[in-house]
Amino acid sequence: MRVEIWSDIACPWCYIGKARFEAGLAGFAGRDGVEVVHRSFELDPGAPAPTDVPVLEMLAAKYGVSREQAEAMEARVADAARGEGLGYRSDRVHGNTFDLHRLLHLAKAHGVQDALLGVFYRANFAEARPLGDRETLVALAAEAGVPAEEAARVLADPDAYADAVRADEREAAELGATGVPFFVIDRRYGISGGQPAEVFREALERAYQEGAVQPLASGDAGVCGDDGCAVPTA
Amino acid sequence: MRVEIWSDIACPWCYIGKARFEAGLAGFAGRDGVEVVHRSFELDPGAPAPTDVPVLEMLAAKYGVSREQAEAMEARVADAARGEGLGYRSDRVHGNTFDLHRLLHLAKAHGVQDALLGVFYRANFAEARPLGDRETLVALAAEAGVPAEEAARVLADPDAYADAVRADEREAAELGATGVPFFVIDRRYGISGGQPAEVFREALERAYQEGAVQPLASGDAGVCGDDGCAVPTA
Repeated sequence: MRVEIWSDIACPWCYIGKARFEAGLAGFAGRDGVEVVHRSFELDPGAPAPTDVPVLEMLAAKYGVSREQAEAMEARVADAARGEGLGYRSDRVHGNTFDLHRLLHLAKAHGVQDALLGVFYRANFAEARPLGDRETLVALAAEAGVPAEEAARVLADPDAYADAVRADEREAAELGATGVPFFVIDRRYGISGGQPAEVFREALERAYQEGAVQPLASGDAGVCGDDGCAVPTA
Repeated sequence: MRVEIWSDIACPWCYIGKARFEAGLAGFAGRDGVEVVHRSFELDPGAPAPTDVPVLEMLAAKYGVSREQAEAMEARVADAARGEGLGYRSDRVHGNTFDLHRLLHLAKAHGVQDALLGVFYRANFAEARPLGDRETLVALAAEAGVPAEEAARVLADPDAYADAVRADEREAAELGATGVPFFVIDRRYGISGGQPAEVFREALERAYQEGAVQPLASGDAGVCGDDGCAVPTA
């Protein structure tokens, strides 16, 4: 089974949803047969990079609310994060995530995509580190197992993995995703949002039990098997 | 969309089915969005390697028929191959294909898996070349774009890609495949056998039109989108 997860590093529900999905996956008996692939989605592709705009300022401007109201909104999301045992700081900054998604594609080539996404989430939400800063990104990539010089090279070349990020985003649109996180099981079922772990576990079990693919055409004609190959009788 | 094709180089219907699938794919408007992945399947894992057993001898022994009857069976399969514009020789030899599948996994890492499978089919069925011969295999791999020294290294190391071959075969069994070729579209639909091109085209169109994944859970809770992130109201 393959689960694809569209998400953005700037998205609190993606951060929380990743933990909830992993809890659901841990409770699923067939977990060892599940391959997880992370896909790119930018919530704010027009955001400047790098930027030092505090998230609370961005939220107040975006929703047209006071700083106190923005803080209250953040506090409720922070409660949900802490409910999953996750750190959450509202003094983080807001910025463009395109470069981070490019690095996640590099990490995929090294087999450490999931690890790097986890490191990015922690750095952003639990540690409020400046993700517009290249040295910070290279250090985080290295922490996840991506060779530092390769990460630096990708950051220096704006075309590196840019097509891969855009292809993921196009695919999200084709699948009808308008927000993230968006989880897709075997291209068959879609789950929108950072749902409770139980929702993920049940979805995995449902897809697993249906299991075998639906036959569209079959029959002896044109098949080779244990008993040899079918031979046309015409 | 992703189409996985389980096949064996020793399987005439896989050879014919590949051409028919490609004809069906060529007639499908969404062909540029289709990724094809070849998966390993051995029809005769117990076959000795390398071997010089003529296919006609193997067939006569397997089915308990005379050489003339084996020739007549082959002639009917050859007609089907020629109907797709494919060369077909019955003086080819029969042998173990495990090493060939290992090389196809190496070719996948180089992005030339489809090319190498085509080269193997042509060498076996149209040219009756000895596929138990390592030098022949290295030359064929190089023709498809696999560096010769890497192919030689994989052939010299019986463990290289062995797990990948066995994982494919396990997956075929899990999906209920008992023969090849076996085509799976998006892990949703299965097509068994070298069916007419039209069957493949229709299956691709059906899967494409259904397109969007089926939502299992959604709602505003826990989603970030263009309008910002949902905030718990509790």
